[in-house]
Amino acid sequence: MATVRLWSDAEVEASPRVKAVFDDIRATRKSDFVNNFWRALANDAASLERVWGQLKAVMVAPGALDPLTREMLYVAVSTANGCEYCVHSHTAVARAKGMTDAQHAELVAIIGLAAQTNHLATAMQVPVDAVFKVEG
Amino acid sequence: MATVRLWSDAEVEASPRVKAVFDDIRATRKSDFVNNFWRALANDAASLERVWGQLKAVMVAPGALDPLTREMLYVAVSTANGCEYCVHSHTAVARAKGMTDAQHAELVAIIGLAAQTNHLATAMQVPVDAVFKVEG
Amino acid sequence: MATVRLWSDAEVEASPRVKAVFDDIRATRKSDFVNNFWRALANDAASLERVWGQLKAVMVAPGALDPLTREMLYVAVSTANGCEYCVHSHTAVARAKGMTDAQHAELVAIIGLAAQTNHLATAMQVPVDAVFKVEG
Amino acid sequence: MATVRLWSDAEVEASPRVKAVFDDIRATRKSDFVNNFWRALANDAASLERVWGQLKAVMVAPGALDPLTREMLYVAVSTANGCEYCVHSHTAVARAKGMTDAQHAELVAIIGLAAQTNHLATAMQVPVDAVFKVEG
Amino acid sequence: MATVRLWSDAEVEASPRVKAVFDDIRATRKSDFVNNFWRALANDAASLERVWGQLKAVMVAPGALDPLTREMLYVAVSTANGCEYCVHSHTAVARAKGMTDAQHAELVAIIGLAAQTNHLATAMQVPVDAVFKVEG
Amino acid sequence: MATVRLWSDAEVEASPRVKAVFDDIRATRKSDFVNNFWRALANDAASLERVWGQLKAVMVAPGALDPLTREMLYVAVSTANGCEYCVHSHTAVARAKGMTDAQHAELVAIIGLAAQTNHLATAMQVPVDAVFKVEG
Repeated sequence: MATVRLWSDAEVEASPRVKAVFDDIRATRKSDFVNNFWRALANDAASLERVWGQLKAVMVAPGALDPLTREMLYVAVSTANGCEYCVHSHTAVARAKGMTDAQHAELVAIIGLAAQTNHLATAMQVPVDAVFKVEG
Repeated sequence: MATVRLWSDAEVEASPRVKAVFDDIRATRKSDFVNNFWRALANDAASLERVWGQLKAVMVAPGALDPLTREMLYVAVSTANGCEYCVHSHTAVARAKGMTDAQHAELVAIIGLAAQTNHLATAMQVPVDAVFKVEG
Repeated sequence: MATVRLWSDAEVEASPRVKAVFDDIRATRKSDFVNNFWRALANDAASLERVWGQLKAVMVAPGALDPLTREMLYVAVSTANGCEYCVHSHTAVARAKGMTDAQHAELVAIIGLAAQTNHLATAMQVPVDAVFKVEG
Repeated sequence: MATVRLWSDAEVEASPRVKAVFDDIRATRKSDFVNNFWRALANDAASLERVWGQLKAVMVAPGALDPLTREMLYVAVSTANGCEYCVHSHTAVARAKGMTDAQHAELVAIIGLAAQTNHLATAMQVPVDAVFKVEG
Repeated sequence: MATVRLWSDAEVEASPRVKAVFDDIRATRKSDFVNNFWRALANDAASLERVWGQLKAVMVAPGALDPLTREMLYVAVSTANGCEYCVHSHTAVARAKGMTDAQHAELVAIIGLAAQTNHLATAMQVPVDAVFKVEG
Repeated sequence: MATVRLWSDAEVEASPRVKAVFDDIRATRKSDFVNNFWRALANDAASLERVWGQLKAVMVAPGALDPLTREMLYVAVSTANGCEYCVHSHTAVARAKGMTDAQHAELVAIIGLAAQTNHLATAMQVPVDAVFKVEG
């Protein structure tokens, strides 16, 4: 199905660099389950390390936005980019982090409305109001 | 600049349907300023009423997500859709609703990271894990 | 498969708000069949009402464009946005509204050509000719 | 502004292959004006010939769709692809081919609505109804 | 599955215009296999001829870029445009033209990184440095 | 113009973390010029470090693809994502790395053709040939 092989646990065990990342994913998430995205990325250990490192820094480390808000932002971007895998995985994670049905419904409604006004603004080529610009 | 005319306040005054929406925008936002998006949409009173009606329902009415989170989701979708106008206007609104520099920086970082993994998942055509799917 | 449940007819019957919209969809289309999009949107009655209300106003009500042209425009946008569901459903509706194979072939060819010149213009960053702009 | 030079009329005159295409553009459109897109594409005579040849075949030659419908489809795709140049140029051409303000308003409204339901269908990952599929 | 029928070899044989293109595809690629894209496009002989003609000119004819680089560029664009079919088919062709696993891993990493910085630049609306612009 | 401030050299000097990255950019590129993208990203030192770190790893470090091919891939993705800033900056870098006019013309032609067939495949919803799939 994929354009690369998905690594089995046995293959992961045999590659120290990949295994180190998988171990950290499991420890960070307190779960044995590692989803297909990482099993595909495992084909390139350097990419695997870089992407997981960023994900930890941006999505897991303490910050100014709470974990659920971050996941909902991820779903919003993934939808606009048309990534079926990412919509599924990050919606599931958002639910696991406590997203209620009402919150999901609002998230979906905001995504839809934003897309509508995005296209309206582009179709009409509305010039940006001077007041919205940050001075250089 | 635009593909349609931007309505001046004088033109708005002369059209009761458009004026009613502009009055509601001003009352809802407690501000006299009405940005170019609405001045472009004013060319079609029915669209103006529909889009503003939705915006009030989805972005202004009380709900399960707080107003700042909603604006940040709007910025996220607008960025992924490449809408210059919308990125500017909704970033400005998010700031007006209290978004700090730290929150903006995280928002931008999440948008960037999501776009990266969206493209990685698409390039590798990663199959959706069975566990992520909601049963029919 | 979806990230939300698809409502069965029995569930629709049990929710007056959802049932009212489904009844209107069936009456408007003169058909008992209600496609999955609405069964997914049924999870949020307010969204269901808003989206169906817009669809009736924009796609069904009499206007300046004929129904088939509107559907073909819908297919064009849906293709450019990469929405598999929407390409399928609106192509089917366009066919039901009389789109011939020759018209479909031209629609597809125009979508492809537009995408090509869109990307060429963006890759070369061609500046907009002054004559194309509507004066402010 | 562009990433390539825009050819002046003097440069066009000096290149027989480019001049032949420009002559055909002017003859086909019955106008001396040649817009920037072609002046940018002139840097690659082979591309210029290929793209203009397609445009004539798809947009100018008689077919199953009338010229205005074709231009509106072009605007729809160009908007969804976020091509500022193309939105401007094809909206101008559609107007030159008789698009009324009411038709433009409907075109814009359909683009916006389609984008909204595109994103809703993607966010909810709605499975395609069996009835919409053409049998292999 | 598709929105058009996929032509069988028997149908291709019965249509001289389609058969001529299929024969050329087979001769050019030195392979009997013709993939589904062409079997779908066969519904419109004129489109089939135009698209295949372009593909030969842009992807097959000798030029300034080697065949593998061209295929990797195709994969990059196809990924950013979210075209599942094209990602699969052009990744397979790139492999057939000698793309190694290491090259594929770099290709995927570049696509992901570019998408990230694309979204960062759009979210921050970074103005283009004067030095990057080609003078008119 | 931007939604964030662009850092001046004086501000960069005053922030050790930002200065360290700017110093590395200048040393790596053997040039004093630092473009606006980094001056915008400087508002978030952590993001600046992460993104520059990735860029060095993916675009600068020795690998399986030569530097010019990498830049052309970057231009291809940036075009498909509609990032004006990135198209300009990476086209300029590609030229600085030796891209000829003929190579640029082919790059642009491939981007355009890929976009066309991407949209054709999506409009026709062509099913992926079994032979293109990597076995799980």
